[in-house]
Amino acid sequence: MKSEKPILTITMGDPAGIGPEIAVKAFCDRRIHTWCRPLLTGNSGIMTRVARETAPGLKIRTVRSADEAGFEPGTMDVLDLPVDHPEGIHNGQISAVAGDVAYRSILKAIEMALKGEVDSTVTCPVNKKALQEAGCPFEGHTEIFAHFTQTSSYAMMLADRRLKVVHVSTHVPLRKACDLVRKERILECIGLLHEGLARLGISFPRIGVAGLNPHAGDEGLFGDEEIAEIVPAIAEAKDRGFQVEGPVPPDTLFAMAAGGRYDGCVAMYHDQGHIPFKMKGFSWDRKRGAMKNVSGVNITLGLPIIRTSVDHGTAFEIAGKNLASPDALLQAIYYASKMCRN
Amino acid sequence: MKSEKPILTITMGDPAGIGPEIAVKAFCDRRIHTWCRPLLTGNSGIMTRVARETAPGLKIRTVRSADEAGFEPGTMDVLDLPVDHPEGIHNGQISAVAGDVAYRSILKAIEMALKGEVDSTVTCPVNKKALQEAGCPFEGHTEIFAHFTQTSSYAMMLADRRLKVVHVSTHVPLRKACDLVRKERILECIGLLHEGLARLGISFPRIGVAGLNPHAGDEGLFGDEEIAEIVPAIAEAKDRGFQVEGPVPPDTLFAMAAGGRYDGCVAMYHDQGHIPFKMKGFSWDRKRGAMKNVSGVNITLGLPIIRTSVDHGTAFEIAGKNLASPDALLQAIYYASKMCRN
Repeated sequence: MKSEKPILTITMGDPAGIGPEIAVKAFCDRRIHTWCRPLLTGNSGIMTRVARETAPGLKIRTVRSADEAGFEPGTMDVLDLPVDHPEGIHNGQISAVAGDVAYRSILKAIEMALKGEVDSTVTCPVNKKALQEAGCPFEGHTEIFAHFTQTSSYAMMLADRRLKVVHVSTHVPLRKACDLVRKERILECIGLLHEGLARLGISFPRIGVAGLNPHAGDEGLFGDEEIAEIVPAIAEAKDRGFQVEGPVPPDTLFAMAAGGRYDGCVAMYHDQGHIPFKMKGFSWDRKRGAMKNVSGVNITLGLPIIRTSVDHGTAFEIAGKNLASPDALLQAIYYASKMCRN
Repeated sequence: MKSEKPILTITMGDPAGIGPEIAVKAFCDRRIHTWCRPLLTGNSGIMTRVARETAPGLKIRTVRSADEAGFEPGTMDVLDLPVDHPEGIHNGQISAVAGDVAYRSILKAIEMALKGEVDSTVTCPVNKKALQEAGCPFEGHTEIFAHFTQTSSYAMMLADRRLKVVHVSTHVPLRKACDLVRKERILECIGLLHEGLARLGISFPRIGVAGLNPHAGDEGLFGDEEIAEIVPAIAEAKDRGFQVEGPVPPDTLFAMAAGGRYDGCVAMYHDQGHIPFKMKGFSWDRKRGAMKNVSGVNITLGLPIIRTSVDHGTAFEIAGKNLASPDALLQAIYYASKMCRN
């Protein structure tokens, strides 16, 4: 009998960052094989070196396809992507060679997911400048996934146990974000969030929509985007049968949601959603003088394939120091596995 | 020997809201008399009724000046302001009569502070529309205090034990807030925050300044306010001897500060500071279906007199139900007392 656990591929991320380290550490966690059948797209040589340095008990096994993978605990199956000059990769340094293999490991993961060889994909962090130096024309993971899956309607959701937030816009200036607060886009985000929450097992989610302005504009006193765009979007979403409320004053929405009032939130711009999320999921590590990612998964909603990701960066400053925690990656793997089941 | 504890006056707030209730509850807390010598500016009749309903052990004593006050535990000294038609005040309802006595209690507190009869003032929440109906031409407390103390350079600080945030702008549309991110104003806020933190006993505070845009603009990629206004303000603040860093990406600054990296933060707009603050200080009460204010004090920096306030509203929906918590008011009284000492 074939196992019913989903097959996941995890991308290596930029090998000058903490991606390979958190991947080998995650493969050493016994829970991962209870959730899924994991493999990694990346470079076997790099993974072997990192495993030797940080998880000596883990065996690295090179495979040419998902069919060849054994998915045994204690072993990491690596769909090997050759690197011509691995000596050009140095911990904590931007390079085209690191960006190139990181980029190819994403492309390979997308290809396998589109062919149905894997059920979902989980990405480790990449460096934007290294990708650029390697000739990748995209801003980051989300744009790469959207392009190669020919997706135009998508949104970024941040998720942890208590807070799930989808964003009307992300990496644009705040002034431009104000312009992007449009009825159609808000409706799209409500729909994507509803669907995403359903895939996480919440059957009829309660959605809270933020205002854009302080106090959600206070009836037009501090801005009119609520009246012109957000209120009509919510009205139409209700007509379509969504369980949705708002516009809620931004400074209370996320605290209410974290307290259980809403299953998910629509944030009007990047920081409106990222600030409350990181207040819950991140903490400052005084000893190391660095942020510690406690939890937080980034899920791209709207793609034809499942893609989750850690919500932290490459952490170049601690790369190769055996200090990185695999917790966020484990959570991303858990969410990806869960979304395959629903 | 005269007591060295500062004399504080607490304003009653809008009597249709929870102000009188949290005031009597705060006066019943034994700690308050260890911090200060408190009295209340408001209406004795209203306070007597509310004390009977929610704190029967508390005695209300009418005084005509601070000199007459006894400041004994178990008694609330009330600087009495007459109300001609108290029957016009109903719990949870906006009215001119409620707005009028709330407004006069603020004016009285300011007058006493300017005359040196009290060392500082603490305000209970008012209703903006009730103030308007009573003919008050100001937006709220801050504007009233600024006007009658002839202050033009001021800023709003939110404070709790772990997070202290001053705001470049507050109640304006987000688009307008982007326009208000100007070097001179940021410098002013850094100075006001430095001084405010010093009054709270932090002698050489470490200040973190937020960016305006996602990732603090990522070197101009998502907006240029950081380069044009914020970076020059920080450079000049350093020249003036302040210990200041930034622009820090908004989604990490507040988590870093709450973790101990900074003593205080400069937020570029209302929600940038209010969202993280309320994630820490507020929680959703599932049973009551309402927000519960756990902590949070609002301090107006830059005034010639000390003014702190609770950071929640009139809570009309629970007025008269004996459900309100005096915790935030006690914290505001504690901060006001502390600022008198430094």
